[in-house]
Formats: sequence, structure tokens, C-alpha cells
Amino acid sequence: MTALNPVLDRLDKNLDQSLDRLFDLLKIKSISTDPAFSADCRKAAEWLVADLKSIGFDASVRDTPGHPMVVAHHDGPAGAPHVLFYGHYDVQPVDPLNLWHDDPFAPAMKEIEPGRKVITGRGSADDKGQLMTFVEACRAWKAEHGSLPCRITILFEGEEESGSPSLKPFLDANAEELKADFALVCDTGMWDRETPAISTALRGLVGEEIVIKAANRDLHSGEFGGAAANPIRILARILADIHDETGRVTIPGFYDGVEETPSQVLKSWEALGETAETFLGPIGLSVPAGEKGRSVLELVWARPTAEFNGINGGYTGKGFKTVIAAEASAKVSFRLVHKQDPDKIRAAFRKFVESRLPADCSVEFHPHGGSPAIQLSYDSPFLTKAKNALSDEWPKPAVMIAMGGSIPIVGDFQNFLGMESLLVGYGLSDDRIHSPNEKYDLSSFHKGQRSWARILDALTR
Amino acid sequence: MTALNPVLDRLDKNLDQSLDRLFDLLKIKSISTDPAFSADCRKAAEWLVADLKSIGFDASVRDTPGHPMVVAHHDGPAGAPHVLFYGHYDVQPVDPLNLWHDDPFAPAMKEIEPGRKVITGRGSADDKGQLMTFVEACRAWKAEHGSLPCRITILFEGEEESGSPSLKPFLDANAEELKADFALVCDTGMWDRETPAISTALRGLVGEEIVIKAANRDLHSGEFGGAAANPIRILARILADIHDETGRVTIPGFYDGVEETPSQVLKSWEALGETAETFLGPIGLSVPAGEKGRSVLELVWARPTAEFNGINGGYTGKGFKTVIAAEASAKVSFRLVHKQDPDKIRAAFRKFVESRLPADCSVEFHPHGGSPAIQLSYDSPFLTKAKNALSDEWPKPAVMIAMGGSIPIVGDFQNFLGMESLLVGYGLSDDRIHSPNEKYDLSSFHKGQRSWARILDALTR
Repeated sequence: MTALNPVLDRLDKNLDQSLDRLFDLLKIKSISTDPAFSADCRKAAEWLVADLKSIGFDASVRDTPGHPMVVAHHDGPAGAPHVLFYGHYDVQPVDPLNLWHDDPFAPAMKEIEPGRKVITGRGSADDKGQLMTFVEACRAWKAEHGSLPCRITILFEGEEESGSPSLKPFLDANAEELKADFALVCDTGMWDRETPAISTALRGLVGEEIVIKAANRDLHSGEFGGAAANPIRILARILADIHDETGRVTIPGFYDGVEETPSQVLKSWEALGETAETFLGPIGLSVPAGEKGRSVLELVWARPTAEFNGINGGYTGKGFKTVIAAEASAKVSFRLVHKQDPDKIRAAFRKFVESRLPADCSVEFHPHGGSPAIQLSYDSPFLTKAKNALSDEWPKPAVMIAMGGSIPIVGDFQNFLGMESLLVGYGLSDDRIHSPNEKYDLSSFHKGQRSWARILDALTR
Repeated sequence: MTALNPVLDRLDKNLDQSLDRLFDLLKIKSISTDPAFSADCRKAAEWLVADLKSIGFDASVRDTPGHPMVVAHHDGPAGAPHVLFYGHYDVQPVDPLNLWHDDPFAPAMKEIEPGRKVITGRGSADDKGQLMTFVEACRAWKAEHGSLPCRITILFEGEEESGSPSLKPFLDANAEELKADFALVCDTGMWDRETPAISTALRGLVGEEIVIKAANRDLHSGEFGGAAANPIRILARILADIHDETGRVTIPGFYDGVEETPSQVLKSWEALGETAETFLGPIGLSVPAGEKGRSVLELVWARPTAEFNGINGGYTGKGFKTVIAAEASAKVSFRLVHKQDPDKIRAAFRKFVESRLPADCSVEFHPHGGSPAIQLSYDSPFLTKAKNALSDEWPKPAVMIAMGGSIPIVGDFQNFLGMESLLVGYGLSDDRIHSPNEKYDLSSFHKGQRSWARILDALTR
């Protein structure tokens, strides 16, 4: 532990400076899905390059057709592994803005209960706070030892929240430069505030926007109501048809490739003690909305879903307008598990929609990203080392869990670079990522830095 | 015809000046449903009062808890009837603004085909252009004869497009002042460009906004998708359940009070020659969306409907956001016929929605106006006189039709003032009322003025 301990001490001593740096990054409005914030995305990339250079990385902003990548390299001792660290600097939109208690881009420290401080702001947990835990661990190690314990390549993406359109071409074009022994991905969470977790399964995602078109203009419902097709009615019917009464998705072929989760895995999840009450209670709900007869953890970790993420049509302002709209649209996403094929799911959904259209109406489809689910091995040596290192840092031993969300990069690392990923992160379930009032616990940020120092140390043994 | 002919000549001669006046009124953005335009509504009322005073009416702006009324009086010869003329100076919102070819509040004259000129702008047809036809007829009569042919009271409302919340209390409080022998209501249309029409049936309306609430905040669909209730899914299911496969509304009790239309009436409508092709073709549709086995005219004139006028929930901006929204909302309206009771329909709809809510979700209801359907007598002497007067003015004889829209004032005149209404208007089916690029034919405006002069003349005989 001779190399590690002074690094941990330094991280403790320099926590305030590390917070200043994180706040600087959080102030940048790097919302990737909205073209109005393109310049902010570039600014975040440039900020990271400057910071990584200050540590001694050979870092650069790398242009793509979308938002730029950040790539940085640092040598390590011969014989030590080469790791690729991944994070993303882009953030989700902030609407509805009126529900935020504070400016989402004016980060602050708040004590939300005695002894529990959190960092507030969009991106604090997803993913700027997380990626900076690793950067700070590298900074402290370098400052203490003049070197890093292993060879490290860093890849920060700026399109993770908008379907990563530039990622695959970039990995493909730069495979030689980016390929390492394995990847560290920091975009996941703890099991609870005391228990670190390593994620071994991730759901995939297919996003699709549909626009139903009926009349060639908006109509007065008095003149045409009862005779003219109403695209909101058609859309509602299509969306309603997607689930049956048991919560199962009815799209033909949707469950192709879905496997039943082994009973010993279900049992280990059961041992975690999560129930419908504990999972849904904090968000004000009590009744699981998915397939009947499955636990909430199985529903979010090992079952596919269809969700409606947005819907819009007709008059939505104040008051009332007796209009029959010319069109109505919905953003629909599917979470995938096991071997479900994103392309087949998209095609099946489109066929499902088209088969429900009246003869004189039409539909436009706009794809928004697609990635298969990931299932990682439970027993790689890297996994075991990381698990032990995390268990040394936190009050309780690390657990193996799954993730309901998608991290497409993990599949891309497998497919383009032939690399497995180790998914470690310090987010908490109440971080409100993608929602108003996102936060990141100060302990996640601080002990996250220390955890990475421990993992880097462990991986090189 | 001694009194009439010089009035008609004067209307022909002064058409340009009457257009200038209409354009001044059309420039005022009197959108009643949006509180941002309250001052514009008052401005429109004040403009009308000043104009009516210039003719010799005893006119005033009359405050209400909402937008003001305009009331004006003018004496007539002893023995002549006393008529109440009604119109509304408020207009519909203009969104989506990007679909307008010109500024909706910069009225202009356009020649849309050889020899056919139209007045463009929001309110040109609904209802500023229409109400000014009557005002211009009065002006010409007064200028020519120094008097009016009968006693005339004018009532202009400023909340017709937003459910008329102030109307009933106003009629109730001012019944003595407003009661006349019958009412003239100018908010309806011609059968076609050559054939004037008198409307003898109007559908009623119930408007209701529902807000479905699920989780206490927006959620990440990766974290919670498959476990948490999605309010868009619940809303889509509720809306989809409202119609069965034959287009019939499924809300229990919805058809109470609906009568089958007498076969001779259906036959007279059939004789008008309207088909699904002629009715729906111009708006780019071909398949009637209402109850199967009924003609399009029966669907819009004599059958009740449920329409979805707006829907909104989750992320509706550019790009994609994998959010599960905390709430979703829809604006729903019902067109009523015959003896359907608006209060019972509203209650039945609310019960229908509540019965479909998951145990841990909730709904908010926001009422937006309600009025029963109207069925006027086919054989009053006023009706016969007006029909003959209209037939004198236009190339083809006037026909008796029904209206798919609601004009709640007609029911209110019956209920509060014990008065029947005569529904005459010069709108055309391609006027795009409530839609972008609203227009009013110049011939509607000009021959409409002449038609009122003829009707006033005929009514006094």
C-alpha cells in the first residue's frame, strides 16, 4: 500500500480544489440534443482537454460530424495493463425549468440532511461529477508519484445523451489508438449509500419518433368533427395497443431473444431486499406498471419495455381550442435485454404502426439511436480486483447488480475494440438524473476519487 | 323596394371604405383564450363602440369579469319588430404561426383565382368580417334614410372562442335591456359560393382538459422503465378506449338524448350532393372517421362526437430524452346533438377516466365550457322572410342546413331571453377558420352586407 496511501491522503487534502474544478465544468451548458447548445458542448470538451494537459496527458479535442470527442493518453510502467477510461461530458436538457429549485447551471453545495452534503446542478451525477472522480484520482497519483500506475487512455464523449451518432465511426476510425486491455466506464451507480456496485448487465435501447399525419391542415372540430380523421386519436390507439392488460408488449416478435433470468440470479437480487414499496415509494408510486408476476428489480434489470417519452399534438396552450390537428407525434423508446436485436425491434414497431393507420393517413418515422443489451462476464480477474478495491473503500462490500439503463459504449467497445468493460460508478438512486434538481453526493465525489485510486492500484498488482 | 334599392346602391359604392374599416378591426389581436391578449380584446370592443356611435347607435363597452361586451341600441319605427343582432369580436389563437403565408394580423386582399378576391387574416371570417356585414348594412340604411327600418339592439361578445364564461351572467343581469322579438346571429356559413343557407340545428359542446399524474417527478426510463407508471401510456389507453371499432363513443350514457334524424331530413341533406369525396377530399382525406354507415353530413350535423383537440406530455423538443414524465394532459371535447345533457356528459366522461386510473395515479379535470345542442323550428315567419330575401340576393335559392359547430349563444338566447334565433352567415367551407390562413371571400363581405339590407327590409313588411 506504499504507493496508494499518500494518493488517498492527497485526495482528502485537495477536495476543495477538486470541487472548484467540477463546478467550473458544471457551469458549461453542454446539452447535446439541442443544437442551440453546440458551442457549449465544444467549450466543455476544450475545458477537459486543458485540464487533462495540466495533469500531463497528451490530450486533444477531436472533431466529429457532431459534438467533439476528447482523447487523452498517458504512459505507464512496462508490464502494467493499458486501460481506456470512458465518460461523457454532455448532459440532458433541463426542462421543465420551472421545477428546478436553483439554476441548473449554477452548481452549489447543499446540506440536504445533517452530515449529508450534495453537489447540485445538471450533470453533477450524469456524468460530469462521475468522470471527474477518475480525473482527480489521476491528478493526485501523478502529483504524488510523478507518474501513473498504468498506461491510461481517456475518451470523453459529447453525444451520450443524444444517441451517440458519431461514436461508432470514431471508434472504427481510431481503433488502433483507443484499443486497450479493458475499459473502465464510469456512468453507473452504487447499490445504496454504503454499498458500492459493479454492473454486469445493461439494457439496450431503441428510440423512435413517430409523426401521424391526417388532414392537410388543422381543422375546426365543429365543421369536421365526426367525419375527419383525428391524428391524436389514431396515435392514442396505436400507443394503447402496444401493451396488453398484463403489461406485456404486443408487437409481434418483440420478445425474440429475451431469456428467462436464471433462478440463482433472481435469488441474489431478491437478497438485496428491494420491493415494490422500497423502489416505487420514493417516487410516489406503489403498483409496478410492467409485466405482472415479476419483481421490480427483474422488471428494470432483465425485462424489455416500451415507454412513451413524449407526446404532442393539437392545441396545448392555455385555454381551449376546438381544433382537429393535422398531425400528432410521439417519442417512443424500447429498453432491450439479452439478445434482442435493435434493428428487428425497430422494423417490427414500424410495421405495427403502419398496420394500424387508416387508409388516407400517413406516418413519418425518425430513428433516435439503437443499441443491443450487454451481458458481461461475472468472473473476470479485473472484476474481482475492482470488487475488492471498492470493498476496501466503502462501509459495505461491493455487490454485482444489473442496470435498467443503456450505456451503448459498452457494446461498442466489445464490437469495435474487442474489449470488455468494467462498469463502476458512484451515483445514487435519488440523484434525479434526467430530471429537475439533479445532484451528486459529496461522498460519491470524494470516495469515488479514492475508489479509483484504489482500483488503479489493485489492477496493477 | 323603394327603401331598399338606394341602400344596396350605397353599399356597392362604399365597398372600399367598408373594407378599410374591417381591416382596422382585423389588425387588433383579440385572441380571447390567451390572457396575454386581454388589452387587445378591450381595444377591439372600444373600436366597435366608436364605430357604432358614428352610425348613431347608443353604444357602450360593458365590463364583465372576462373580456367586455359591446351593447348598442337604435330605435326603429313603431310597429316594426325589435331584433337583437349578435356577433363576436374575439378570434382564435394563430399557432402554428409558421404555417401562415402572411402575418395573421396584417389583413390583405388577395385574388386566389381569376375574379375571386378574398380578405386574409385571423378573424376575417370568424367572426369580424361577418359581424361587419351587418354593421355596414345599418350604416348604409341610416345614411340613406336617416333612420333604421326596425329597432335594433346589437350585442358583440369577446369570449366566444374561449367558452363564453361571462355571457350567461351578462344575459341574466341585462335581460330586460337585451330581450327582443328574435335574434339575428351571424356566425355561420353558406351552403356553397352561390347558395345561401339558414342553419336550423347546431351541435352543442362540452370541453374538458384532463391531466394524468403518476410519479412525483420526471423519471429516467432506464432506471424506472418497466416498473413505474407512465402517464402518457395511461392517457393513451383512456383516449383509445373512448371510441370502439365502429367509431361509436363508448362512454356509458353518452347517447342518452340522441335521436335518429327523420328520414325526410336525411333525404333533403342527401339532395345537397355532398359525399365523403367532396367533403373530405379538399382536406386530403377520404375515409369518414365517425360512426360507420352514416353520411358525412349526418356525422357532422346530427351525430355526437368525442374529439381530442390537444395532447401533451414528456419531452417534445428536438432530439430525444429517455424520460418518463410525471404527468400528461389532453384537451377533449364532445359535440352534442338533440337532447344530450352537457352536465351529464361531463360527469360520465370523468367517471370513465377515473375508472381507468391505476391505484397510485391521479387525474385533474379542468372544465372548458359546455352547451346543449340547438334545434330551431323549420317554419317560423321570420325564417321564411329571411329565406326569400337571401334567395333574392344570391344566384341560387337559400337552403336549410344544420351546423356541426356550436353557437352557445343560441341556446342562451332561448333560455335567458325566451327568444329564437335566425342563423344567417356568409362563411364558406374553405375559409380555414380556426386554422392558419383564414380568409373571407370579398363576395361574402359585399353580398353579405346587401343580404342584411334585404333581410331588414323583408322583416319589416
